[in-house]
Amino acid sequence: MKIDVNSDMGEGFGVYRLCDDDALMQVVSSANIACGFHAGDPNIMTHMVRLAKANGVGIGAHPGLPDRQGFGRKALPFSADEIRQQVLYQLGALCAIAKAEGTKVAHVSFHAAMGNMINGDLPLALQVMEAIKSIDSGLIIFSQPDTYVEQAAQQCGLQTLTLFLADRAYDAQGQLVPRGIAGSVITDETAVRARVRQFLLEGTVTTFDGQLIAVRARSILIHSDTPGSLELARIVRSEIEANGGIVAPAAEVVAQ
Amino acid sequence: MKIDVNSDMGEGFGVYRLCDDDALMQVVSSANIACGFHAGDPNIMTHMVRLAKANGVGIGAHPGLPDRQGFGRKALPFSADEIRQQVLYQLGALCAIAKAEGTKVAHVSFHAAMGNMINGDLPLALQVMEAIKSIDSGLIIFSQPDTYVEQAAQQCGLQTLTLFLADRAYDAQGQLVPRGIAGSVITDETAVRARVRQFLLEGTVTTFDGQLIAVRARSILIHSDTPGSLELARIVRSEIEANGGIVAPAAEVVAQ
Amino acid sequence: MKIDVNSDMGEGFGVYRLCDDDALMQVVSSANIACGFHAGDPNIMTHMVRLAKANGVGIGAHPGLPDRQGFGRKALPFSADEIRQQVLYQLGALCAIAKAEGTKVAHVSFHAAMGNMINGDLPLALQVMEAIKSIDSGLIIFSQPDTYVEQAAQQCGLQTLTLFLADRAYDAQGQLVPRGIAGSVITDETAVRARVRQFLLEGTVTTFDGQLIAVRARSILIHSDTPGSLELARIVRSEIEANGGIVAPAAEVVAQ
Amino acid sequence: MKIDVNSDMGEGFGVYRLCDDDALMQVVSSANIACGFHAGDPNIMTHMVRLAKANGVGIGAHPGLPDRQGFGRKALPFSADEIRQQVLYQLGALCAIAKAEGTKVAHVSFHAAMGNMINGDLPLALQVMEAIKSIDSGLIIFSQPDTYVEQAAQQCGLQTLTLFLADRAYDAQGQLVPRGIAGSVITDETAVRARVRQFLLEGTVTTFDGQLIAVRARSILIHSDTPGSLELARIVRSEIEANGGIVAPAAEVVAQ
Repeated sequence: MKIDVNSDMGEGFGVYRLCDDDALMQVVSSANIACGFHAGDPNIMTHMVRLAKANGVGIGAHPGLPDRQGFGRKALPFSADEIRQQVLYQLGALCAIAKAEGTKVAHVSFHAAMGNMINGDLPLALQVMEAIKSIDSGLIIFSQPDTYVEQAAQQCGLQTLTLFLADRAYDAQGQLVPRGIAGSVITDETAVRARVRQFLLEGTVTTFDGQLIAVRARSILIHSDTPGSLELARIVRSEIEANGGIVAPAAEVVAQ
Repeated sequence: MKIDVNSDMGEGFGVYRLCDDDALMQVVSSANIACGFHAGDPNIMTHMVRLAKANGVGIGAHPGLPDRQGFGRKALPFSADEIRQQVLYQLGALCAIAKAEGTKVAHVSFHAAMGNMINGDLPLALQVMEAIKSIDSGLIIFSQPDTYVEQAAQQCGLQTLTLFLADRAYDAQGQLVPRGIAGSVITDETAVRARVRQFLLEGTVTTFDGQLIAVRARSILIHSDTPGSLELARIVRSEIEANGGIVAPAAEVVAQ
Repeated sequence: MKIDVNSDMGEGFGVYRLCDDDALMQVVSSANIACGFHAGDPNIMTHMVRLAKANGVGIGAHPGLPDRQGFGRKALPFSADEIRQQVLYQLGALCAIAKAEGTKVAHVSFHAAMGNMINGDLPLALQVMEAIKSIDSGLIIFSQPDTYVEQAAQQCGLQTLTLFLADRAYDAQGQLVPRGIAGSVITDETAVRARVRQFLLEGTVTTFDGQLIAVRARSILIHSDTPGSLELARIVRSEIEANGGIVAPAAEVVAQ
Repeated sequence: MKIDVNSDMGEGFGVYRLCDDDALMQVVSSANIACGFHAGDPNIMTHMVRLAKANGVGIGAHPGLPDRQGFGRKALPFSADEIRQQVLYQLGALCAIAKAEGTKVAHVSFHAAMGNMINGDLPLALQVMEAIKSIDSGLIIFSQPDTYVEQAAQQCGLQTLTLFLADRAYDAQGQLVPRGIAGSVITDETAVRARVRQFLLEGTVTTFDGQLIAVRARSILIHSDTPGSLELARIVRSEIEANGGIVAPAAEVVAQ
């Protein structure tokens, strides 16, 4: 039973860093590498690719809107064509860096507002997926389950990998409880371990209001930009392994 | 007898344009497309790629230093590794955009200060050429004759195409006479036509001080950011064709 | 009878230019100088200030949203506080450059989307006007008549100067006919001259659908980024002077 | 006996932060606020100004070269005029933000490469000081002792405040021992306290090689971007106060 643990990485810029990428790269199995628009730069991207290769971590593009000031978190009025071109540009840049290091990009995970914009617009999602497919039809698309991103990727014949967040409360519809609400973020280690175990062994999560719902996911996402992300990643990984799971990159998970 | 006519293109940004790219794309046979660092952006790059494809023009990457304010014209203190990563990033971005349009990048032509830095440092030139080769060993490197760029490209097994400037005076060493000097830029149409003819039929140029020297070049470079560049391109092209030459993209020229 | 002729200026960046600022500065009486966010940079701003001073042209700040790629034309999701800070930052930068040249900023004219956002939100407009007033209570605010910008400025005790566009059709409500509509932009010199004359002598404009409405304005705005702007400015100025008007900076117009 | 404790602050950007500015602002007496070129943005600048005002901390401009990617640490080929304009732009921006908050900029401290460039070029230093003086002749210039910055400031009639670094080794010429050398950075609390005491009571520092040299300084600089800067600032402040010193902003120190 293989399961992926992924995190956004290389989201610094110049002298700035958001997390200890070097340490985190030793824990995750898939790295979503920022591609220079919302964060990241060619140096950081190259360093991430080398770290990922050295640690056997799957390399993913993590494209975002061109907005360093807002860290790609704001929806911006770009046309569908512009979004498509932004995705291609960033994906291509990372592909070249990976290729020059003797490795390759295995997946794509959209960042923040770019992801939300694509998720909210099926024709856009289809246009973006067709563009990605034209670069490499073997690329795996990361998404929350039951989204336009997933639907469009599958419609285009791209493989998908859906995500579970072990430290975030879900509601009965399978949606994340917004961060502002008390209890939405689970920080207690025992609770997190229990959720990982339940997800792994039973494929379910207990919702915010006490219901049991199925979780269709094969990767656990660690938000690297929240405090304690490195420790959370270690807890998740150790709990997976303690329960007989194998932490493996996205490509191995979808191939199993 | 095939000869290439190339120009830097897509060097605008946002609302800004440096030349009439649409018109120029109907005259040249190779387009060096700015890749978003010194100029250009994903929209402009995509438009250029589509124009080039529609006009049968060869697509080239025109990477520059990350300096929009200075238009990539200033030497900046980047390390060799940083230059290498900047080249890969930009080349990869354009490759992806081209691939999604059903075409491909055929050549690389370095912009301004980035070109000068690579030309002034053989180990850097070798490092950059190895990186480019790892992306596509069929890429053609544009350069002035007898430079480190040409030497490094050939040493790495990459094809090269050397350039002639029909509107610029040369000295006896085959170097361009600096723009500041009177007579360094030739604007008279008859004179330009005579130089194209002489280059084409005899393979020589008459230097600033009246000597005859050999010109080892297979492409004529039009600087798109100088006034009258479109007219110059038309003159060069018509003179080539009037003398039985065939204007063809770099890939055809090196293959002949 | 003094009337101002104003234009947005210094809207280039690095090597890029949108119009012939040097020539236009000899025709207008007030210059709205881009302040480095949507366009402009410290060099261009300094050059504009020196040109304005040399030509007796009134100096104005032309702040925009921080969006070079979009030239400040897109509404972006900034908070009221962020807009306020952006205005202060840009206004302060130009004030310092002007002061070091022995002159001063006389007015403020908001650019594109920033202007639209402020115009669409009275509390924001009031917050921005209070901030501007805290820098210099003598600053004159440029606006279309009957807008929140005008209302907020007056409410804060700031002087205002309202604008007329001689080359744009108006509807019966005094609104500009959108550019997309045929006839919205008037390019015929005789027609433009007639409109300037009518505005000057009768204070009216004949609308798109043939009605006569009053025009409450004391400055004619020339859009510098449209083709022919320099010629338009010359026509407007010569027509004003031919009818006994005196072209004068905003400060003189509001003081008369 | 008043002495200033100053630190570079607000050197984040967007989501990024280099130190805990809010905590540090409660310890220092002068804040050198990044002005949006190498770091900082209008939001952060406004927050810093408000914090400084609330804590009675002196507000200073900390202008740098326009290079976020390199954090203003690389010498870049700007002309003297360009540097002058960059200083004015940034200083003016902060002055406006401060003025709108009912306070004012009291001093100027140059960042990294901009400081080095000005320090290495007396005519440039004079040009910059004249420009600063034209904005406010009461501004205090921070500098290392015996530099062109200090000399130029004094020549222009500006007040100066020289700096001492309590955690850095000095050589016999009064220069800082470069960071790369072992022992150049003093991290032991007892040692730092002893140095502060010696500086305060005797006006001397014991050099790297054991000599005693005079220290002509009235402010202690804390580098906020080094680990432990907050704790270092607290140690420095408590040692000053334990020895009867009064920690006070630059303006009070130069006025005493």
